[in-house]
Amino acid sequence: MREEFDASLLEIGRLMVSMADAVRAAMSQATDALISADLDAAESVVARDQDIDDLYRQVEEQVREVLARQAPVAGDLRMVVSALHIAGDIERMGDLARHVARTARRRHPASALPQELVGVFRQMANVADRMAGEMGRVLSAPNATQAARMDDADDAMDTLHRQLLGIVLGPGWPHGVEPAVDAALLGRFYERYADHAVNAGRHVVYLITGEQPTSATD
Amino acid sequence: MREEFDASLLEIGRLMVSMADAVRAAMSQATDALISADLDAAESVVARDQDIDDLYRQVEEQVREVLARQAPVAGDLRMVVSALHIAGDIERMGDLARHVARTARRRHPASALPQELVGVFRQMANVADRMAGEMGRVLSAPNATQAARMDDADDAMDTLHRQLLGIVLGPGWPHGVEPAVDAALLGRFYERYADHAVNAGRHVVYLITGEQPTSATD
Repeated sequence: MREEFDASLLEIGRLMVSMADAVRAAMSQATDALISADLDAAESVVARDQDIDDLYRQVEEQVREVLARQAPVAGDLRMVVSALHIAGDIERMGDLARHVARTARRRHPASALPQELVGVFRQMANVADRMAGEMGRVLSAPNATQAARMDDADDAMDTLHRQLLGIVLGPGWPHGVEPAVDAALLGRFYERYADHAVNAGRHVVYLITGEQPTSATD
Repeated sequence: MREEFDASLLEIGRLMVSMADAVRAAMSQATDALISADLDAAESVVARDQDIDDLYRQVEEQVREVLARQAPVAGDLRMVVSALHIAGDIERMGDLARHVARTARRRHPASALPQELVGVFRQMANVADRMAGEMGRVLSAPNATQAARMDDADDAMDTLHRQLLGIVLGPGWPHGVEPAVDAALLGRFYERYADHAVNAGRHVVYLITGEQPTSATD
């Protein structure tokens, strides 16, 4: 019974690490699509979001099976319920990468990004990538300190997001309304991607310490 | 044992209906704050989001207790796990109402909405209110047909959202970048509020029919 439970947990963990890898790759490719106005890259991100959704459904399936067959309690139960939260956050990160890719696709063959925003989006994408990577690592080897460090990266993301809005809303913005609206929505996609990574991290901390996580998805 | 389980389910249902009422009131008040540039209304929405988060935590607590003490299986288990999803969607609707209120607060004493957008936002708010009301009703008395009807309302929301972007990005827009960015983000808040109501409805359908819900939160 215990062995079966451990095997199920291992499988759930494996699925979540695959999800984390997939959403990291998705956002990285979506950023390429955005910065290089690369239609193939954009299409690929949109198409592969299906795979991430499938992985999510597999996690749900496994969780339901474990609950039904093993009726875990205490720490075991906490772990299983947390898996649902974490997988939900990662699934949502995949959606956000797809949103970025769709914006790139909609503006193709033009670029959705005016030149002066490329730098700040590159930085936002770097922070997002670092956070998704960190999330994958703490899922592979749960570690409360490392998970908590994601909050710092999230602060960096918020600063970049404010910087982005400063450019778009500043007096020197020459591109008019449509690229400004695109940029504001794109900025929000990266920022929320980061929030979900933080949330996933907080659930890992909760698993380790038992401290109830607060939500970063404002 | 069965009686205890039924009592717990009833309590979880009661909490979710309270959440649904609260997020409906929150979005309605946030819309007032937005349209009338009413600072008190905005502050009240922001402050009371805490109560919604507290209700959500109570649902989580109850779910965890039921799982640990009753180890439900089959349909019972499905019900308990779905409650987590539904409560998560409703909690997020509260966050989105708070985002609307914060935008109103940020622009106060000016209005965040140029006059020509008041009509479309009023309509979006009406659809949102109808959907939240419907959601509350299907939670009180689960009904697959009624829950599925929320998809139609969501189509109305998507149409309004496109209409909004048409105004903001149209050639006649005289207000420049900042109100356009505000309007685009606000539009997204209402649209996602509706998506979460649809998701909650789909989970109710799932409870009744056993058909796996797809996600509307794109």
